[in-house]
Amino acid sequence: MRIGLVGLGKMGFNMRERLRRAGHEVVGYDRNPRASDVASLADMVAELTGPRVVWLMVPAGEPTKQAVAELAELLSAGDLIIEGGNSRYTDDREHASTLAEHGIDYLDCGVSGGVWGLEVGYGLMVGGDAAVVERVMPIFDALRPEGPREEGFAHAGGVGAGHYAKMVHNGIEYGLMQAYAEGFELLDAAPEVTDVPAVLKAWSRGTVVRSWLLDLLIKALESDPELDDLRGYVEDSGEGRWTVEEALNHAVPAPVISAALFARFASRQPDSPAMRAVAALRNQFGGHAVQN
Amino acid sequence: MRIGLVGLGKMGFNMRERLRRAGHEVVGYDRNPRASDVASLADMVAELTGPRVVWLMVPAGEPTKQAVAELAELLSAGDLIIEGGNSRYTDDREHASTLAEHGIDYLDCGVSGGVWGLEVGYGLMVGGDAAVVERVMPIFDALRPEGPREEGFAHAGGVGAGHYAKMVHNGIEYGLMQAYAEGFELLDAAPEVTDVPAVLKAWSRGTVVRSWLLDLLIKALESDPELDDLRGYVEDSGEGRWTVEEALNHAVPAPVISAALFARFASRQPDSPAMRAVAALRNQFGGHAVQN
Amino acid sequence: MRIGLVGLGKMGFNMRERLRRAGHEVVGYDRNPRASDVASLADMVAELTGPRVVWLMVPAGEPTKQAVAELAELLSAGDLIIEGGNSRYTDDREHASTLAEHGIDYLDCGVSGGVWGLEVGYGLMVGGDAAVVERVMPIFDALRPEGPREEGFAHAGGVGAGHYAKMVHNGIEYGLMQAYAEGFELLDAAPEVTDVPAVLKAWSRGTVVRSWLLDLLIKALESDPELDDLRGYVEDSGEGRWTVEEALNHAVPAPVISAALFARFASRQPDSPAMRAVAALRNQFGGHAVQN
Amino acid sequence: MRIGLVGLGKMGFNMRERLRRAGHEVVGYDRNPRASDVASLADMVAELTGPRVVWLMVPAGEPTKQAVAELAELLSAGDLIIEGGNSRYTDDREHASTLAEHGIDYLDCGVSGGVWGLEVGYGLMVGGDAAVVERVMPIFDALRPEGPREEGFAHAGGVGAGHYAKMVHNGIEYGLMQAYAEGFELLDAAPEVTDVPAVLKAWSRGTVVRSWLLDLLIKALESDPELDDLRGYVEDSGEGRWTVEEALNHAVPAPVISAALFARFASRQPDSPAMRAVAALRNQFGGHAVQN
Repeated sequence: MRIGLVGLGKMGFNMRERLRRAGHEVVGYDRNPRASDVASLADMVAELTGPRVVWLMVPAGEPTKQAVAELAELLSAGDLIIEGGNSRYTDDREHASTLAEHGIDYLDCGVSGGVWGLEVGYGLMVGGDAAVVERVMPIFDALRPEGPREEGFAHAGGVGAGHYAKMVHNGIEYGLMQAYAEGFELLDAAPEVTDVPAVLKAWSRGTVVRSWLLDLLIKALESDPELDDLRGYVEDSGEGRWTVEEALNHAVPAPVISAALFARFASRQPDSPAMRAVAALRNQFGGHAVQN
Repeated sequence: MRIGLVGLGKMGFNMRERLRRAGHEVVGYDRNPRASDVASLADMVAELTGPRVVWLMVPAGEPTKQAVAELAELLSAGDLIIEGGNSRYTDDREHASTLAEHGIDYLDCGVSGGVWGLEVGYGLMVGGDAAVVERVMPIFDALRPEGPREEGFAHAGGVGAGHYAKMVHNGIEYGLMQAYAEGFELLDAAPEVTDVPAVLKAWSRGTVVRSWLLDLLIKALESDPELDDLRGYVEDSGEGRWTVEEALNHAVPAPVISAALFARFASRQPDSPAMRAVAALRNQFGGHAVQN
Repeated sequence: MRIGLVGLGKMGFNMRERLRRAGHEVVGYDRNPRASDVASLADMVAELTGPRVVWLMVPAGEPTKQAVAELAELLSAGDLIIEGGNSRYTDDREHASTLAEHGIDYLDCGVSGGVWGLEVGYGLMVGGDAAVVERVMPIFDALRPEGPREEGFAHAGGVGAGHYAKMVHNGIEYGLMQAYAEGFELLDAAPEVTDVPAVLKAWSRGTVVRSWLLDLLIKALESDPELDDLRGYVEDSGEGRWTVEEALNHAVPAPVISAALFARFASRQPDSPAMRAVAALRNQFGGHAVQN
Repeated sequence: MRIGLVGLGKMGFNMRERLRRAGHEVVGYDRNPRASDVASLADMVAELTGPRVVWLMVPAGEPTKQAVAELAELLSAGDLIIEGGNSRYTDDREHASTLAEHGIDYLDCGVSGGVWGLEVGYGLMVGGDAAVVERVMPIFDALRPEGPREEGFAHAGGVGAGHYAKMVHNGIEYGLMQAYAEGFELLDAAPEVTDVPAVLKAWSRGTVVRSWLLDLLIKALESDPELDDLRGYVEDSGEGRWTVEEALNHAVPAPVISAALFARFASRQPDSPAMRAVAALRNQFGGHAVQN
């Protein structure tokens, strides 16, 4: 197939490559002229033939909204936009409804894979109409990992379901990472355990906790056995917060995912106002020594 | 009554004073000769007349165990030891059983009150035999706050119940302090709220969250409205950990008390090994920027 | 002063009474004719003289929005609406901006006090312009508890600050309640402790955990010492969720308040889907017995 | 090698088989005569030749302590006991010290693998003296999964390190399972997502959250897409509690692992005493409706 791809950053750049390796023709557009195949969004659209398919891979929020708005004008009825960025699933409804007014179809697609996706393939979760999904299956098949389709691709439900599923995927990821991280710290804290990297590596096969994330942690420890070259300062990308917000919306208890998120918040505070308040209280009632 | 009081530190010193103000004769012993009324534990015992009553107020663990062992030799059958320190309730069983071999009675008494106890009185939770409790009620009545006895004193149950109750009291305290602390930080974080101390002060009367701890926080904010003179570094005294251990022993979910405790642990880490592990993972899978 | 009061439910009804006892003239309107002083909102407005003051005390969300919209038409420039319900603070901005177009002033006021407010007074947190706040201080003074004004009233900041502060107040309340609740369960679980209500009552004076909520728990235990007449099923009113959402918005770690909220969510689930997933996993990897 | 194996339950039975397939001679003893190769522990020892090697695979706590005590009498100086059960790492020190008095060597070995270990192999974490570990490497090599030794075997450190590492492994497992479980519930709760099992299956390849546990959850959903055949009632096996206790001992924040454990505790409560206390409080202060 021939497809337009908007956004050639860390993710989009590799996806273009993977699609091309699979024999698809990709017209990529990026504001960065060194990455871009064409000079403008309009040029990209001009190089596609109807019914056109455009894959969006730009930052969530305003940039995606703007790209949808521009494409709504450039595309025609019967064309299709696949939003593959990290949009909040509630944005998908608005995008779909805006585009529907122009007769343009819309799919949302959560994409997992990071920098490894080029070689391994990307896990895909798609929301939207089944017939539309079917139409671009060759694209999904090229991006997803080798093997049975259902092990790397899901039609999760209606519009928004793809990004909702990806959001939950990322929320789980927060919890998984924190679980390994707490375990790492517990191993690190025990004088009995003299070879922490060896312990984690020994979990690679045959254990209940084996996983791709574990493999990555083992890899990180190979070059830096105490993780001394890093600071315990961790950003969050928004999807963890959305996951907890959905937990609130649906009254789903999410103690693990929220704890993982709060640990990141705390990791970024040079000094915690809350803990200053606790210190102040202890000082008041007990005359406990405090650190100034 | 005449009573021996072992341990004249921050708590014991004030308790001696409160007991004396109530007309009791207190023979206080402390290793610090400037605080002590007598030169030795033996001298203290010698100044008491049988059946003797000795109140222990020394640090929990070894110091208390040693004092119990020494007093087991110095006291006689029919005498009584009241362990008013912060012993773990499981230690009480051992103390009681050791002393029972000598015919010496034993009560454990959890004491709340901090530096304010001298004026306000101490909340008391006692474990042991009801008849023995009754025998020293004048002492408990002198230490507890004014007002109806049951509002500042409880016979909680058998040996250990007093310290168990005090341990839970402290566990609750951890949770309460953290709840106010999170609230403080949330107020502090909102640009809308321009007078955080005024908000907390307005909760002093008529609100659901009014409490003594709130009053203390208000007091702290009076002299330091942003709590800038403090660091968010908070020790824990052991009883929070014991409370969570009892939650584990009794399979009681304790998410709030444990979260409050973990927040203190985290407050003391200049850099979190766990969060370094999370940073390492993010770096591996996403090429996310990390702080070195 | 003369004031209009819209909404005479559990809260508004008592507030009308408290205002009248303080000598204010209150024209109350409620859809329920038995509670209402007048037949319509328009009638209420007609009985006020300019510059008019109307206090809103209707359910948050749509009912409040509608009341604001109707009053925007009925009132005149220079009049004032005080939103005393449980509006989300983000709604206040919209209300204020809508009313500003009509020249009508706006204050938001968080009100704490529950069914006890009539006698004890209500804790008040107000957001808006200082001059406007000053204008209706007699009303605030009548509603707030006796004693120094600042112990029951705060001008928290600009529009929205009152409801933000009240929201945080309620979030703290969630954490406090859960801390006491965990403590209650831990006391209940220990065979050593034979008189749980007595222990809690003994904390009433002289302890670090004394509070109004503790007093209420003691009261509840007086008539039902094991709390056997209740089910452990707890609703949440929305403000706890908003508080956690603000924690997400401001990247404030809120492990205690969120844990308290999640415990409520879990309390309402007859069976937990998440725990079914854990059971399924254990069954898969370990052949662990599961309950069907 | 020839080895004695004590305990032929779910784990030991399969381990005997795996060892035999690798060409080792295993003399298995179990109290259950149908599984046992010999009539008694003494008979088992008699069939081994010095220096003898005995692998323990009996329940942790008393059964293991008793087996160690009996074997201390039956074995000779230079023999070796490998404790492969789920002993708490603190027990290992006592075992090692008891056996050292008889000149008997001791290794502790944490074993992961569950019912799948027979085919896949068992992840092994060993504590003890390096020379002793080397001596029985053929046994470890037979039990561990195929592939590089270090991916299924670690010499973690001194006595106790093996079980400590296994304990942390299980603690992590609790956190991982709960993270997936919360994600499952969040997917289940969203009306947008119409095919939850398909979403999870699509994470099998190419995603950040792919893991063996995920594969198991997918497998469970294949036969029971809503997990309706199960109840959300989950036991805990002790190692999760130990992990949290070690977090307390080492002052390591463990919000995720503890939250996962508390969720299990809560899952087993038909009605929560803590939530009854919260309900009682709400009833007291707000006149909120409660469920009786």
